[in-house]
Amino acid sequence: MNVRGKPCRTLWELPNADGVEVIDQRVLPHRFATVALRTPEAVAAAIRDMTVRGAPLIGAAAGYGVYLAVRAGADVDRAAELLCAARPTAVNLRWAVRQVVEAARTGRALDAARRIVADELERSRRIGEHGLPLLREVARRRGEVRVLTHCNAGWLACIDHGTATAPVYAAHDSGVPVHVWVSETRPRNQGAALTAFELGEHGVRHTVVADNAGGHLLRQGLVDLVIVGADRVAANGDTANKIGTYLKALAAHDNGVPFYVALPTSTIDWSLADGSGIPIEERSADEVRYAEGLGRGGAGRVLLVPETSPAGNPAFDVTPARLVTAFVTEHGVVSPAELRERLT
Amino acid sequence: MNVRGKPCRTLWELPNADGVEVIDQRVLPHRFATVALRTPEAVAAAIRDMTVRGAPLIGAAAGYGVYLAVRAGADVDRAAELLCAARPTAVNLRWAVRQVVEAARTGRALDAARRIVADELERSRRIGEHGLPLLREVARRRGEVRVLTHCNAGWLACIDHGTATAPVYAAHDSGVPVHVWVSETRPRNQGAALTAFELGEHGVRHTVVADNAGGHLLRQGLVDLVIVGADRVAANGDTANKIGTYLKALAAHDNGVPFYVALPTSTIDWSLADGSGIPIEERSADEVRYAEGLGRGGAGRVLLVPETSPAGNPAFDVTPARLVTAFVTEHGVVSPAELRERLT
Repeated sequence: MNVRGKPCRTLWELPNADGVEVIDQRVLPHRFATVALRTPEAVAAAIRDMTVRGAPLIGAAAGYGVYLAVRAGADVDRAAELLCAARPTAVNLRWAVRQVVEAARTGRALDAARRIVADELERSRRIGEHGLPLLREVARRRGEVRVLTHCNAGWLACIDHGTATAPVYAAHDSGVPVHVWVSETRPRNQGAALTAFELGEHGVRHTVVADNAGGHLLRQGLVDLVIVGADRVAANGDTANKIGTYLKALAAHDNGVPFYVALPTSTIDWSLADGSGIPIEERSADEVRYAEGLGRGGAGRVLLVPETSPAGNPAFDVTPARLVTAFVTEHGVVSPAELRERLT
Repeated sequence: MNVRGKPCRTLWELPNADGVEVIDQRVLPHRFATVALRTPEAVAAAIRDMTVRGAPLIGAAAGYGVYLAVRAGADVDRAAELLCAARPTAVNLRWAVRQVVEAARTGRALDAARRIVADELERSRRIGEHGLPLLREVARRRGEVRVLTHCNAGWLACIDHGTATAPVYAAHDSGVPVHVWVSETRPRNQGAALTAFELGEHGVRHTVVADNAGGHLLRQGLVDLVIVGADRVAANGDTANKIGTYLKALAAHDNGVPFYVALPTSTIDWSLADGSGIPIEERSADEVRYAEGLGRGGAGRVLLVPETSPAGNPAFDVTPARLVTAFVTEHGVVSPAELRERLT
């Protein structure tokens, strides 16, 4: 998608496959900077410190990390271990590392790293393709389509297109009038910072709102459909995603508005019968106690609570399948009931 | 309720009824300071700049504002006009001003101002008294009661006790073990700043969470009851309150957890058949675009969104009566169905 009017991706190869260059997502939306990563250690550090984030992007970066170890004649197993340890809970990262380690045995590490990127790109593109008719149909009836999203399931989390945003970009690029309500997504504000940035740079009309406003917008009839990403989906369709997703699903349901989850099918964990087995990460209380942004003297943060007040910070919630209208995947749009039947 | 271990109110008379002293709520929770108000102009300014906030407290302050005009031999009608203009949508303010203006005709302005404070105190105290059994009953069964609240319907918005917090303080003060989940309440963070402050100072156990976390806490069985305040309630029980209240009500309902609205009956607008007629104030976009708090150099704010991203900021939402378990009022606890029957 575009940044400053030019097509951009979150990761690309340096000349002579010397390494990769990535967008430094820590300084968005207030600065746009890129970082060159030329060693497995540099890639691991970029994953650890969240220079790159989003499961698909982390996987792609880690794949190149293994390749860079091979290229330098370094210990590949040690590099693989280092990369996997950079974000211990990222399933996709471990999968990508394994792919490239295996390919390295037959001298095809670079091919494998490139394949991960190409496959990821294609999946996002097809999620957009399959989601587009849902938006086009509303716009045909109403003159435009008004979408509500949460967190950043955008191209910044992938290589391009994104998951929840893929149908939005597909609609925008094919001339369908689209407006996006961007939920700020406290405590880390990925909506306010990242989703608003990428929509704005690509020229998609959008309005940032507090997470609290989602229900009101739905009740007022200002939203035609809700579309979010997913961190993990159980076999019955229960969906773990960024904290707050469940509240939006409830409000969509209460107002008869479709609630879509956009995801590559690799996000479905067939080993889980339902969402009750999905562990919910409790993150640092300081993410809630402070808000980060651009202050007078540059990047900074402000304390929101009394010094002595404790805070809780569950990072995800689980939306029951009964609240999900359909999943938008690279293979098509399926209801929770069709999930196992259609995708296995 | 206590501040630094000593009983405190939001407003009290200066010696010789020379004026009133109030807590400067703009600098909470990071500083505790008070301001003396000795003229109607000073009172109007304190209302306008939100040194005092919360409908009951604004009314009480405005009542004294009229009295101070009488005391100084100033033009009472001009003072009344000035005070009413300080917060144009505050119904309670206009009512309080009228009370004292009328009393002034018979030389009883100070009595009338004092009566507003005394009546307000008594209403809050009785809301606590009527709400206490709801909390005590849960604690008897479970060993403690875990409450979720939103925004600040606390004693800082009143003279003492508060509305939603009144049953919490009544429980705490009578030895019932109580824990409060405090929803931060973006965009103005009245939960994180004010509710957390007053609970902490009074020694009530509490944990601040992002607004997004409410649904997850309810699904996990970590909340025994939800209790919030109200800005305006229609005759059928539809409840306008701080943006985000509706989402909490949906989540409480979806998990079979009682959802209570605590309010003085003066908040009920019998002229409205339902909530569809309640106007929703759209506030400044910058409240969403920035977060305010304590920075390295003192009070400050940080920009959360890209410079060019617009934001929307509806200040209230309407929770349909079907999601309200009961109203906790100064006259007792009534269901939405009993509302008109019992209170008129």
